[in-house]
Amino acid sequence: MSEVVKITFPDGAVKEFPSPVTTEDIAASISPGLKKKALAGKWNNQLLDLRTPISADGKVEIITSDSEEALEILRHSTAHLMAQAVKRLYPNVKLGVGPVIEAGFYYDIDVEEAITPDHLKKIEKEMKKIVSENLEVIRKEVSREEAKKLFGDDPYKQELITAIPEDEKVTIYKQGEFFDLCRGVHVPSTNKIKAFQLLNVAGAYWRGDSNNKMLQRIYGTAFFKKADLDAHLQFLEEAKKRDHRKLGKELGLFMFSEEAPGMPFYLPKGQIIRTELENISRKLQREADYEEVRTPFMMNQRLWEQSGHWDHYHENMYFSEVDHTRFAMKPMNCPGHMLIFKNDLHSYRDLPIRMAEFGQVHRHEFSGALNGMFRVRTFCQDDAHIFVRPDQIESEIKQVFKLVDKIYRLFNFSYTVELSTRPEDSMGDDSLWEHAEQSLEKVLKDLEVDFHLNEGDGAFYGPKIDFHIKDALGRSHQCATIQLDFQMPEKFDLTYIDEHNKKVRPVVIHRAIYGSIDRFFGILIEHYAGAFPTWLAPVQVQIIPVSPEVHHDYAKQIEEKLRAAGFRVEMDVRDEKIGYKIREAQMQKIPYMLVVGDQEVENQAVNVRKYGEQKSETIAFQDFMDRLQKEAEI
Amino acid sequence: MSEVVKITFPDGAVKEFPSPVTTEDIAASISPGLKKKALAGKWNNQLLDLRTPISADGKVEIITSDSEEALEILRHSTAHLMAQAVKRLYPNVKLGVGPVIEAGFYYDIDVEEAITPDHLKKIEKEMKKIVSENLEVIRKEVSREEAKKLFGDDPYKQELITAIPEDEKVTIYKQGEFFDLCRGVHVPSTNKIKAFQLLNVAGAYWRGDSNNKMLQRIYGTAFFKKADLDAHLQFLEEAKKRDHRKLGKELGLFMFSEEAPGMPFYLPKGQIIRTELENISRKLQREADYEEVRTPFMMNQRLWEQSGHWDHYHENMYFSEVDHTRFAMKPMNCPGHMLIFKNDLHSYRDLPIRMAEFGQVHRHEFSGALNGMFRVRTFCQDDAHIFVRPDQIESEIKQVFKLVDKIYRLFNFSYTVELSTRPEDSMGDDSLWEHAEQSLEKVLKDLEVDFHLNEGDGAFYGPKIDFHIKDALGRSHQCATIQLDFQMPEKFDLTYIDEHNKKVRPVVIHRAIYGSIDRFFGILIEHYAGAFPTWLAPVQVQIIPVSPEVHHDYAKQIEEKLRAAGFRVEMDVRDEKIGYKIREAQMQKIPYMLVVGDQEVENQAVNVRKYGEQKSETIAFQDFMDRLQKEAEI
Repeated sequence: MSEVVKITFPDGAVKEFPSPVTTEDIAASISPGLKKKALAGKWNNQLLDLRTPISADGKVEIITSDSEEALEILRHSTAHLMAQAVKRLYPNVKLGVGPVIEAGFYYDIDVEEAITPDHLKKIEKEMKKIVSENLEVIRKEVSREEAKKLFGDDPYKQELITAIPEDEKVTIYKQGEFFDLCRGVHVPSTNKIKAFQLLNVAGAYWRGDSNNKMLQRIYGTAFFKKADLDAHLQFLEEAKKRDHRKLGKELGLFMFSEEAPGMPFYLPKGQIIRTELENISRKLQREADYEEVRTPFMMNQRLWEQSGHWDHYHENMYFSEVDHTRFAMKPMNCPGHMLIFKNDLHSYRDLPIRMAEFGQVHRHEFSGALNGMFRVRTFCQDDAHIFVRPDQIESEIKQVFKLVDKIYRLFNFSYTVELSTRPEDSMGDDSLWEHAEQSLEKVLKDLEVDFHLNEGDGAFYGPKIDFHIKDALGRSHQCATIQLDFQMPEKFDLTYIDEHNKKVRPVVIHRAIYGSIDRFFGILIEHYAGAFPTWLAPVQVQIIPVSPEVHHDYAKQIEEKLRAAGFRVEMDVRDEKIGYKIREAQMQKIPYMLVVGDQEVENQAVNVRKYGEQKSETIAFQDFMDRLQKEAEI
Repeated sequence: MSEVVKITFPDGAVKEFPSPVTTEDIAASISPGLKKKALAGKWNNQLLDLRTPISADGKVEIITSDSEEALEILRHSTAHLMAQAVKRLYPNVKLGVGPVIEAGFYYDIDVEEAITPDHLKKIEKEMKKIVSENLEVIRKEVSREEAKKLFGDDPYKQELITAIPEDEKVTIYKQGEFFDLCRGVHVPSTNKIKAFQLLNVAGAYWRGDSNNKMLQRIYGTAFFKKADLDAHLQFLEEAKKRDHRKLGKELGLFMFSEEAPGMPFYLPKGQIIRTELENISRKLQREADYEEVRTPFMMNQRLWEQSGHWDHYHENMYFSEVDHTRFAMKPMNCPGHMLIFKNDLHSYRDLPIRMAEFGQVHRHEFSGALNGMFRVRTFCQDDAHIFVRPDQIESEIKQVFKLVDKIYRLFNFSYTVELSTRPEDSMGDDSLWEHAEQSLEKVLKDLEVDFHLNEGDGAFYGPKIDFHIKDALGRSHQCATIQLDFQMPEKFDLTYIDEHNKKVRPVVIHRAIYGSIDRFFGILIEHYAGAFPTWLAPVQVQIIPVSPEVHHDYAKQIEEKLRAAGFRVEMDVRDEKIGYKIREAQMQKIPYMLVVGDQEVENQAVNVRKYGEQKSETIAFQDFMDRLQKEAEI
């Protein structure tokens, strides 16, 4: 062991320190300000606590609140902070696990009291007290025996200790009277934690197994700045309002039943939107020279063995028996499309063949993983397989890219793009891979698309481009994918006849744009907060006669004119107050309300109130029709 | 036993005859002409041979070639005639069964020679010889032992004799040296059989069991007049040309695969037609205030137990396992729609609720019963369930009837209607049944529909109206059905709140118009012989530039104009002769071919050739567009 360690800084500078040194020492050597800001360190790309001794040369980085990893550390420490507060308030509590999750953390606790929002307030108060106590957070390596003794009366921690692999160190983190079994890393003291909030409580089985005891899971989140926390809480509130499961119910879009968990029932209004989504995609696909097919919903198991789905996916497939033979409900549409391709001879002149299907697939998901339309057990893919010659890869990818862009523009989605290239376990010809990757990259550059390169992250059968759309709340959803496949043509022995009259393998491009129509529909509900644009809205115009009797004829007349023009119109003829009817139409988020009374009848006019706008205006009915027609054009 | 029998004639007249008497005697007593025309008799509505003695009073009818039952008797006798001829030509032949089928008969024979069309000619020649021998056909009752002795060396007949129930008489029919085990009834002599033809040979397992020996099944048909036979043969030839399985392949409409027997793959051109069928139905349904839904493809078995499908239908259902529970692929859409109805509270003012679904159902069929699109294992129903108050039955049935009529008119289908009323095992309230039957009958009378009354032929859960469409060859296909259901609302405890604030049961109307879209598509292919009307045709216009180079720009320009107007257009740019291209477009039965050459380019014209017409004409392109637009309107 040398007496000095050579520390390399991110900018390449090298400095020697007496061994051992901590990242806190190193930060201090740069400036007192940095020492104060320092939360943790990174040594040779591995996170460590601020006061963990370093006794070998290496690259060091100081983690501050600006670092990518900082929020996760903060939230992990906030989970400990909460556990400490809980233990102070409920001394008999037993603690489960307390990990960081997306945008926050949770801790599972076993305590007799049912934790209520009031309890959460009390816990938060205690947490603030501990923050002000400014307790140092200390990491300690212990032996297995020591650990078991320390957590003597806690069955959960005992179980966790037993589960730690033999070759792994056991560490605990201590702050004041509290200590927890933990790998770290943590902030150096409790006063680094300032902006946090506990969010809610839910039941959770110990280790996710319904045979175990149900614990109480407290969710919370933390930020470095109060403003960030406030923004996040506002985001959560907005997201809750937009929750597609809630809106789906309120707007009568879809339902679920315990007779078919995870399998959506489309109610009439939801089905209208679903049909519009299918129709616009069908129209744009036809314009882009796609051919639509429809293949069976289940097929012989041997076909799935041939395609490789059996090997890689059979645990997620549903099976049935036909003629004493196992059939599988299709989890994907590829094999059916391969059979169609093989049904005919193809010349190089016929390619590309763009085969699309709105294919209903079934894929098993654990019941606990089901989540409204976002995670279902059956959904409809806007799937396509494009059979191309190698020399057509580039132009075809470009065409697909343009179609994706066209469809996302319909919904004002911006998106980011990721290119994933050859992984280590790839299959297929070297030169084909190279050519394909170059083609993909060239397309992205030609189209001036900013993309993130995931080197080695492609599928074993070919490179791919993924699209992540950004919704109105800034959340990202992976939807479209364009994947090259060199394997499927091999497995199904697909060929075309080239210009020298030789049989050659085509390349297959898998492609989906919505991905799952059902999930995309769920995303749209949240994106629009249920207030769909006119072309998509299940009811586009609500007509409200001031008096259902007196103004009925005129109201009926404009209803019929609108219907004849293809619009979805409803008329509210109930014997209710005007104000009530207007409020109800607004609750249903109908794009246009037309109130018609004496004046409107006299002038062949309508009083138009647009959804989301306070004021209404009276205009000639024909002008309204023209405006609507223009607006509904997509 | 009395010495005279009292015979009552169809006109009610009664006459005495010495006992026993035969129907031949009775015919002779009326006129020598009738005796000559007589083929068989009917005594108390039971068919008997012309010379079977009658020794009890009863109603008698003389069967002549004009009688409803005559053709079946003739064809049965022709089967015997054929068997006799076969036995003369192949003395070692063993005979299976020889029943009458729709429009003909067959006989299964076990003979070493593979029967070819040449053999059929020889057999026909022998049959004619036997006709001219004018052999009397004699019925004889025999004991089981006698029968077994008579058919000593024939294993098939032995098996058949053993299978005859104990309480049934064993009879044989003899003509000349030939005799056969048979229940009858037959014509009195071979010379009554004149216009017949053998049609083809196919393999058939003895008793339909693939573990048994494969026999040769000879098909034939017979008529009383040569003109009728000729017409039928011409019909068969036309039907063969229109066979949807053949045309489906030639026109690239659909395919089947051994990976999913009985489950259609829609090829691009077939899928276009399928989509058009769905779209037009969706449009008309929306206009008729239907609401469309979409329900899961499989649901928990207990739901099917509740609906009664499990009890009545589980042998035709496919099952899968989800979360260790048996789920069934839906064979019908009803239970899903009931769940949707129950998802909400309903007031009497909300009814009728018209819930439609293009629902993909799976129903098992034996592999031997599969037949192109006519008999499949999965199909899409244009299903609807209408929830009505009892007082709305009449108006609603009328509305459904009008929709059926509107849809069938699109295809120029005429149809016949059958009303089926309360069966003996019916369930539900008497007054409801009475009211419902009266409503159905009243609707049919109000609409001045000729209908056939099937008394007691309704479902146990309610009366129904069935529609049989007539295709271009005069064949009848049962498609639409309107069924009242008083049971489903009970089983699912459906209610609405009536005007007195009380919970009341609605009545459910099940309704399908196409029935199965897939089968209807098959019927349409044969109805149109593949030459679909313009609005349905997968390719509506084929553009053929005289020179793919010289006339390319103009051809492309009109192609784009047609496409922009929403038409399905293809352009044939292959380097082939014009005549060849025209012939190919005609083979594809494309409604319009546009040939464009120098003259057309100069005059902004097109040379139009309509499918099925010999001559072509040159008209301004704009005039063609106008004509097409008008024609494609439906």
